[in-house]
Amino acid sequence: VKPAASLAIATAAVALALPASAEFAKPEDAIKYRQSALFVMAQHFGRIGAMVNGRAPYDGAAAVTSAEIVADMSKLPWAGFEPGTDKGGNTRAKPEIWSAPAKFKENSEKLPVETIKLLAAAKMGNLDTLKTAFANTAGVCKSCHDTYRKD
Amino acid sequence: VKPAASLAIATAAVALALPASAEFAKPEDAIKYRQSALFVMAQHFGRIGAMVNGRAPYDGAAAVTSAEIVADMSKLPWAGFEPGTDKGGNTRAKPEIWSAPAKFKENSEKLPVETIKLLAAAKMGNLDTLKTAFANTAGVCKSCHDTYRKD
Repeated sequence: VKPAASLAIATAAVALALPASAEFAKPEDAIKYRQSALFVMAQHFGRIGAMVNGRAPYDGAAAVTSAEIVADMSKLPWAGFEPGTDKGGNTRAKPEIWSAPAKFKENSEKLPVETIKLLAAAKMGNLDTLKTAFANTAGVCKSCHDTYRKD
Repeated sequence: VKPAASLAIATAAVALALPASAEFAKPEDAIKYRQSALFVMAQHFGRIGAMVNGRAPYDGAAAVTSAEIVADMSKLPWAGFEPGTDKGGNTRAKPEIWSAPAKFKENSEKLPVETIKLLAAAKMGNLDTLKTAFANTAGVCKSCHDTYRKD
């Protein structure tokens, strides 16, 4: 492979690995977007957590509503980590997100997979099932935070 | 009707008119929640706006994706306006939201109705149809902001 072709292939690979850029008008918007989506998700995930941890009474319908919102929201934050958004707002995101984007993408894609299971568990209407799915989802949150979020 | 029964009826009516209280740990969380949901929605609504206003090329698939998120998000902010959240954070919400909650609720319920039409329009894949639905939705946003948001 000639150098020019090799560069073209490398560029194409990067284009596939990274989210489409310029989706946000400015880095602050991307940062606020991902934080907003994560905050809305966390509020609803926390309500399920309160039920499974006994801090709130188990309410099957409310658990499903929250799990639906968690599942929807879990797909959104990642687009907000577009290149150039490591700075420009009040962010705790670590440089590893952008220095090894394929690894970050692989990690971030685990969340929607897990939250679909959480929603399925909520729909079963069984607190023990919900407890297990909640713990598995919380594990995915924690793993990503441990690696990619500053203390 | 005796006074005690009358009070019970009045209390029940208020309970129906207002969102369930104590959904959020503190007023700041409710304020941040509604602002977060509105921000995520606005980002995606703005992308559709850029297409219909000619500031961005029309991308049918991207319009549907954004319209789906707008439709989902349009249901969320209202729970964040629970009683006692007129203060406690950086909010531009006007007191009328809480002094005449039934009217605010009636207004807020117009948005999900309109965003479902926006999504249907996006799915038709026709820019003129999308333009009309976008304008109608924007009108609902503006009407509510004019009445309930401080400058």
